[in-house]
Amino acid sequence: MVERPYSRQHISAQFNAEIDAVKSDLLEMGGKVENQIELAAEAITQRDSSIAERVLLIDREINQLEIAIDEQCIRILARRQPAASDLRLIIAITRLTRDLERIGDEASRVAKLAIQSAESDASSTAYTSVEIKLENIAHHVIDMLNRALDAFARLNAADAILVVLSDTDIDKTYRASMKELQAAMAETPVTLPSMLQLMWALRSFERIGDHASNIAEQVIYLVTGEDVRHLSADTLRLMLD
Amino acid sequence: MVERPYSRQHISAQFNAEIDAVKSDLLEMGGKVENQIELAAEAITQRDSSIAERVLLIDREINQLEIAIDEQCIRILARRQPAASDLRLIIAITRLTRDLERIGDEASRVAKLAIQSAESDASSTAYTSVEIKLENIAHHVIDMLNRALDAFARLNAADAILVVLSDTDIDKTYRASMKELQAAMAETPVTLPSMLQLMWALRSFERIGDHASNIAEQVIYLVTGEDVRHLSADTLRLMLD
Repeated sequence: MVERPYSRQHISAQFNAEIDAVKSDLLEMGGKVENQIELAAEAITQRDSSIAERVLLIDREINQLEIAIDEQCIRILARRQPAASDLRLIIAITRLTRDLERIGDEASRVAKLAIQSAESDASSTAYTSVEIKLENIAHHVIDMLNRALDAFARLNAADAILVVLSDTDIDKTYRASMKELQAAMAETPVTLPSMLQLMWALRSFERIGDHASNIAEQVIYLVTGEDVRHLSADTLRLMLD
Repeated sequence: MVERPYSRQHISAQFNAEIDAVKSDLLEMGGKVENQIELAAEAITQRDSSIAERVLLIDREINQLEIAIDEQCIRILARRQPAASDLRLIIAITRLTRDLERIGDEASRVAKLAIQSAESDASSTAYTSVEIKLENIAHHVIDMLNRALDAFARLNAADAILVVLSDTDIDKTYRASMKELQAAMAETPVTLPSMLQLMWALRSFERIGDHASNIAEQVIYLVTGEDVRHLSADTLRLMLD
């Protein structure tokens, strides 16, 4: 990773301040989204609809933040006519808000499932086993998102690459959980509705992992200038050398 | 809809040509994605893995187009320092490519399901009934995407609003199909694997509808300057007056 096209040399201190403000708003949005996923995981595993309601409330704040940050970005682009490196940063930020907002949507989906499942009785050995896997996946994706945002804050491409690579672990656990759920559904069809709820929740967490991975890809693009969205894991690993 | 901040008054003919080129590339990408969804729907309903393979091939082209269009956009931003109205167009285009690319991903997911289902035998009354609903949803989302891209080409906000509003019909059919599938799974657990495949395919088409709706929202933003992403259907309907 020799190339570092992103360097900041501005004439205007005011411009720097604007860029820093939008970066810090993005990180604030990221923090809210992390908190939202944590609560969503808690809501679904504890079948707690009051926690789920909080997730839905946070989602409105996140949507507002997305709009506000996008407006800031467009204002900066229009007034400041930034140089290529800052341009890339601003474009990356408008993409990151999109991913964060979609993570928020997935967390809300999980919250809605939690509200449904709070009303149903769903205790079976298979259910509990998958629930534990779901908790693992949730922790893993929260960690991924946290590391992706941290890599953004410090413009660290190597860390971002590790985030992208770690997504494959989630995919593995996800597939194993799906198989387990499917077997359990076939065996005891009476548990089907609650198993399907768990399945959709799993899917949402897996998607959150994808979005965290997208965020990390944007950081790599920002630091190295390389668009890695469709590269293989092996090619990515080579970039770490 | 009085406000029309998007108006094109450029000094440079070259600049116009660049904007037109990127718009036409976007529409080309859109055409490929439409074709891809059509083939994905065909592949899954006819359980035809050779059609599914074509879907996966098209996906690579779409990914390349996304990268190429994004690069064009950044080049224009860096060299031309466009005025606010064109800025908004370019930002909108980078978002549209993202939605188109994700539609492509969903089509690929359906294609992979089609390859799996080509190997399984899945004929039951419930399966056929849901398959018909899936075909309906697929046609509906292809139509939505087509109209959203058309609204973009003609910068027609009213048509874009109609696209966003039509997404609720899809959601209704989707929910009905899900209920039907769930009932069928509970009744004849032996059909579970194929029913789940159909369920994931349905989900993908529903998501494609969401992305088409996002594209239409971007067109509304482009033409009216209004960010309608989190507005209710009633508020949107009022904009049509």
